Amino acid sequence: MSPKKIPVAVLAATGAVGQRFIQLLENHPWFDVVAVTGSARSVGQKYGDVCRWLLPTDIPENVRNLIVLSSTPEDIQTPLVFSALPSSQAETIEPLFAKAGTAVCTNAGAFRQDPYTPILLPEVNPEHTALIHAQRKKNGWDGFIITNPNCTSTGITIALKALQNSFGVKRIFATSMQAISGAGYPGVPSLNILGNIVPYIAGEEEKASWEPRKMLGTVNKGKLDLAEIGFSFHANRVPVIDGHTVVLTVELNAPPADFGLVARSLSGYQAPAISRQLPSTPQPVIRLRAEADRPQPRLDITEGMTTVVGRVRPDNLFDLRMVVVSHNTIRGAAGGSIYNAELLVEQGFISV
Amino acid sequence: MSPKKIPVAVLAATGAVGQRFIQLLENHPWFDVVAVTGSARSVGQKYGDVCRWLLPTDIPENVRNLIVLSSTPEDIQTPLVFSALPSSQAETIEPLFAKAGTAVCTNAGAFRQDPYTPILLPEVNPEHTALIHAQRKKNGWDGFIITNPNCTSTGITIALKALQNSFGVKRIFATSMQAISGAGYPGVPSLNILGNIVPYIAGEEEKASWEPRKMLGTVNKGKLDLAEIGFSFHANRVPVIDGHTVVLTVELNAPPADFGLVARSLSGYQAPAISRQLPSTPQPVIRLRAEADRPQPRLDITEGMTTVVGRVRPDNLFDLRMVVVSHNTIRGAAGGSIYNAELLVEQGFISV
Amino acid sequence: MSPKKIPVAVLAATGAVGQRFIQLLENHPWFDVVAVTGSARSVGQKYGDVCRWLLPTDIPENVRNLIVLSSTPEDIQTPLVFSALPSSQAETIEPLFAKAGTAVCTNAGAFRQDPYTPILLPEVNPEHTALIHAQRKKNGWDGFIITNPNCTSTGITIALKALQNSFGVKRIFATSMQAISGAGYPGVPSLNILGNIVPYIAGEEEKASWEPRKMLGTVNKGKLDLAEIGFSFHANRVPVIDGHTVVLTVELNAPPADFGLVARSLSGYQAPAISRQLPSTPQPVIRLRAEADRPQPRLDITEGMTTVVGRVRPDNLFDLRMVVVSHNTIRGAAGGSIYNAELLVEQGFISV
Amino acid sequence: MSPKKIPVAVLAATGAVGQRFIQLLENHPWFDVVAVTGSARSVGQKYGDVCRWLLPTDIPENVRNLIVLSSTPEDIQTPLVFSALPSSQAETIEPLFAKAGTAVCTNAGAFRQDPYTPILLPEVNPEHTALIHAQRKKNGWDGFIITNPNCTSTGITIALKALQNSFGVKRIFATSMQAISGAGYPGVPSLNILGNIVPYIAGEEEKASWEPRKMLGTVNKGKLDLAEIGFSFHANRVPVIDGHTVVLTVELNAPPADFGLVARSLSGYQAPAISRQLPSTPQPVIRLRAEADRPQPRLDITEGMTTVVGRVRPDNLFDLRMVVVSHNTIRGAAGGSIYNAELLVEQGFISV
Repeated sequence: MSPKKIPVAVLAATGAVGQRFIQLLENHPWFDVVAVTGSARSVGQKYGDVCRWLLPTDIPENVRNLIVLSSTPEDIQTPLVFSALPSSQAETIEPLFAKAGTAVCTNAGAFRQDPYTPILLPEVNPEHTALIHAQRKKNGWDGFIITNPNCTSTGITIALKALQNSFGVKRIFATSMQAISGAGYPGVPSLNILGNIVPYIAGEEEKASWEPRKMLGTVNKGKLDLAEIGFSFHANRVPVIDGHTVVLTVELNAPPADFGLVARSLSGYQAPAISRQLPSTPQPVIRLRAEADRPQPRLDITEGMTTVVGRVRPDNLFDLRMVVVSHNTIRGAAGGSIYNAELLVEQGFISV
Repeated sequence: MSPKKIPVAVLAATGAVGQRFIQLLENHPWFDVVAVTGSARSVGQKYGDVCRWLLPTDIPENVRNLIVLSSTPEDIQTPLVFSALPSSQAETIEPLFAKAGTAVCTNAGAFRQDPYTPILLPEVNPEHTALIHAQRKKNGWDGFIITNPNCTSTGITIALKALQNSFGVKRIFATSMQAISGAGYPGVPSLNILGNIVPYIAGEEEKASWEPRKMLGTVNKGKLDLAEIGFSFHANRVPVIDGHTVVLTVELNAPPADFGLVARSLSGYQAPAISRQLPSTPQPVIRLRAEADRPQPRLDITEGMTTVVGRVRPDNLFDLRMVVVSHNTIRGAAGGSIYNAELLVEQGFISV
Repeated sequence: MSPKKIPVAVLAATGAVGQRFIQLLENHPWFDVVAVTGSARSVGQKYGDVCRWLLPTDIPENVRNLIVLSSTPEDIQTPLVFSALPSSQAETIEPLFAKAGTAVCTNAGAFRQDPYTPILLPEVNPEHTALIHAQRKKNGWDGFIITNPNCTSTGITIALKALQNSFGVKRIFATSMQAISGAGYPGVPSLNILGNIVPYIAGEEEKASWEPRKMLGTVNKGKLDLAEIGFSFHANRVPVIDGHTVVLTVELNAPPADFGLVARSLSGYQAPAISRQLPSTPQPVIRLRAEADRPQPRLDITEGMTTVVGRVRPDNLFDLRMVVVSHNTIRGAAGGSIYNAELLVEQGFISV
Repeated sequence: MSPKKIPVAVLAATGAVGQRFIQLLENHPWFDVVAVTGSARSVGQKYGDVCRWLLPTDIPENVRNLIVLSSTPEDIQTPLVFSALPSSQAETIEPLFAKAGTAVCTNAGAFRQDPYTPILLPEVNPEHTALIHAQRKKNGWDGFIITNPNCTSTGITIALKALQNSFGVKRIFATSMQAISGAGYPGVPSLNILGNIVPYIAGEEEKASWEPRKMLGTVNKGKLDLAEIGFSFHANRVPVIDGHTVVLTVELNAPPADFGLVARSLSGYQAPAISRQLPSTPQPVIRLRAEADRPQPRLDITEGMTTVVGRVRPDNLFDLRMVVVSHNTIRGAAGGSIYNAELLVEQGFISV
């Protein structure tokens, strides 16, 4: 390990999201994976021996031989941990780390509704990390917990932020068509989804209707005010490997007289200055596609961290319709947590 | 052929929709296929020799040996023809048949926007056939043309009719996830759609936003007034063989105080009396599913002519959300045209 | 229940194969399902309440309200049971029923290698039921166990029997491309198989190389001699819902001078007389397709019990190549067991 | 363009294979694409305007603005052309270029059976380029034509070469499961292949049974002697985007006493020295996977030019069974042609 890098651990590293963390952290310029944790069944064994690796690339050499540890602050003493824990475990385990002084960047949803825990997208709301102070104070922690949003909330919040900045956003109709990798592994049985659509994902419509309001809200005297945006949401599972597609009809507060400004507000959107030059910063934040039939998940997730928007067109009921595609396991999960950690380093919340 | 049956022809019988006509008319109690037409290339040859049959069941024996004729009133002299012609050909060929005194039940879209040509769903608007008189008069025809709606309009119009009857329908947000068979054959290249979503189908959003307004409108002094319903529509192609899924958010004119009445208006919907006992009448018209994750296209198209609705639930912006699944090549195409013809026989517009 | 029908129970009726039994036995002319069993978790509840039904048709009304019982001869006293038990449970439970005097027609593999338990295909080896006498004697049972083969063995054994009868069969190269429903539910995770091939199914190559030898063998003085046929087998999982496809290269003992006789031996194959008029008898046993690109699983499983063969052509190394498609959950599982039971009734091994 | 690079043209650059050439040649260290050709319809227009680009990455900037030319030596005067022409056009056009002094590296099959045209795999038979002299002499050409094999022949020939070197190869039973991208665009209609297997690809079994014999043969006094290997081949189309899977049963001339040597002969295989350090040389040539269920096309084509082999195990009839996965549009098409051109540069057949 380079002496200048920050040592990190990945909690629940053998699962689907955990594997993405391991893959994306290989050769990361700031972070080095020095520890991995797993279930009781795998503790004490080599990661490469117990992990049923699902990604097309191979297990990074430096991680293959790590011995799997248990997810406790006693075993894991890195200043930063990435958590791929299931929410039910995250609820009890992540506070233990925060208490022990660790910075926890988690993909779990356990604390997203906590008023002092930011749901963070560096392109959207880097200033929400100001809540960390209140979070520490309230809990008596030296460390803290930062979450990234649900994978479905991620892409639409980034696109809506661009519109919010320019015109204000009032009401949203949204229909998601979500990739199977969003359900983890083994996840969706093939008999359910091959040649089929499942028009239901438990809890998803509630999350995707609320999380954007929190991320698009404002921190006011150490408190977060939700954005006043109404949502009508339909969540669907589709037979796609990676890449969530969401179609949106949007009502703006102040629609522009020139509809062309809508597209330009999207394609020209820039992350806040502090988030623009980090290792995982998407370039561009939003890629606007002009083709009539794009974005498509199979073609438009290759840029990983970039949110892809297309079919921006007027609407009969509200102001505009558009299609958003986002890589659910990179931008919407592990990659998002890593980008969050980079921001926290930049902001001085994490250091070696 | 039974002496009591009405002899019919199928125009463009070798294509994907034409084949469904042939399949569904096998053993039909009222109609007998006595003639089929096809392109210049296939005229004069046996149907079984030139048709690249795509359906899991085999070509009916009585049709296999029919000689393919050309699509002209000179060659085809049955009192009724079912047309699977592409719209560009339908535009010129179907009027020739109508002029020659033939009843034309067509799946083509060429005349759907004509004010004197009904778009007909026997469960919804059987009284619209009153326009036939004006159509004949205006064109000087002995016959007439009746269309069925676009496959995507079909299911949602049936479901909306039930709501319209009970509460009035004001505005609709809709997202379709449409099966590949809706694009005909060869249709969608597999490289475009395998493991993918294509968020665009040319012309579909316009059709599916307008046709329901016509079918849900009223005939007033020989003229059709469109229903005042606003649509925001997103059309998508998905890797499903048969069965279009549409998610809908609906604003009602007079929402019920008791939300349970919404579901009951759907499950209890009955076709108008004249349409209830025809050979192709769906039983029930609408099947309401109570499971959280239904309807699904692969599981819920087995009843062919029935429209399947599920996930009826309140909405934050409008009044309700629901999911509609409809068999696009049976209820939404060939089966719909046959049901239309049955209604026309019952109404006395067609006879031997 | 009709007074003339034989009451039957389905063991493990809530799983994927169990559901097929329930579906196929609805309206069966000889058998009436009067009892169903399930795991401890579901015992005492209504079948319709605990079964996560996976088939496109609905749960038959007569079964929906049956109370789930446990899989013991004390709870289940029908003269015949159909078993969809997993092999590990079948190994201990099925003998208890046989001992109690019950006829067990099982889809489980636990006893397929037992020398006194026939693997039965009525089209192929109805005379193997003669082993029942030895089975009873050896175990001291009043009842007996009859198995159907593994789903992959089923189609190829039927096709090979036709060739064996005419020319003798010596050596086989076989590659299977097996549907996901063969793995049960939840079975194959969608992340493993969507847009993919998995060239491995645990234990399948061994089963499919041995079971045909047993079924094509001969009963000799109460003992079964395996057919002398050599196999080289490759098993693969493919993203197909239902229908196993197997390509075969076959070496014959006495190849015909006229290659056309090979195809005729297949298309003209008849089941032994005793198996020809049973309720589940396939008509025809083998359907020979002449098209260059058939059989295909999605198109050629509609006849359920029929084995579909095509692409019969000469080979450079052995004598012929061909493709076999068979419905794995109907002919290759539940439907096969039911057909076996019908044969056993016809042979007098089962009665009311 | 760098002054040191060789200017090249891509013939039929707008099709599926042509696009792969364009993609793979972006930033190539030796070659610069300076011209592209297309059909009459696209000649005179910008490549970026007429090409319906199908790959997940975007059109390289340097090619986007090239004006499409016609496929004639008058329009195209580069020393090297890569041809993605369909075979019917290749047959007349490619000789015109060869006559004009151009080196033609083609993916078309038109001349694969010509005794003086090598089918070239640099890992396998670089010495076959010696036939170029005879080819030039016989035709009176200054240039020449070099073909790469059919995509299905590619992977198996590389794997068989390793076995041939060590033990000799006598007879092969092979079943291919081929990706849809092998059929070009629009290629396979989705209605044919979604959730299905098509057990037939026109001409494929003949090609894949003959081309390996030519590549594994020996040049003897300016003449090519085919390797004496017998094939029994079954070709199938499967719903996979990229990556052909072939299962093989192989009879060796001199099987090793220690079966472990088989795997080692594969994993240790090295390309002939002259082919080892070229820009497109796969590293390794053959990747041997030890997992029970690998290789799989979705997971094992990420290395592009590498041939992936797994499930190496003994066989009952011949000597061994194994599974080979190869990227059909990279190693098996455009990437293969580029690697061939690199070898020809190294051998001095092509220069600026």
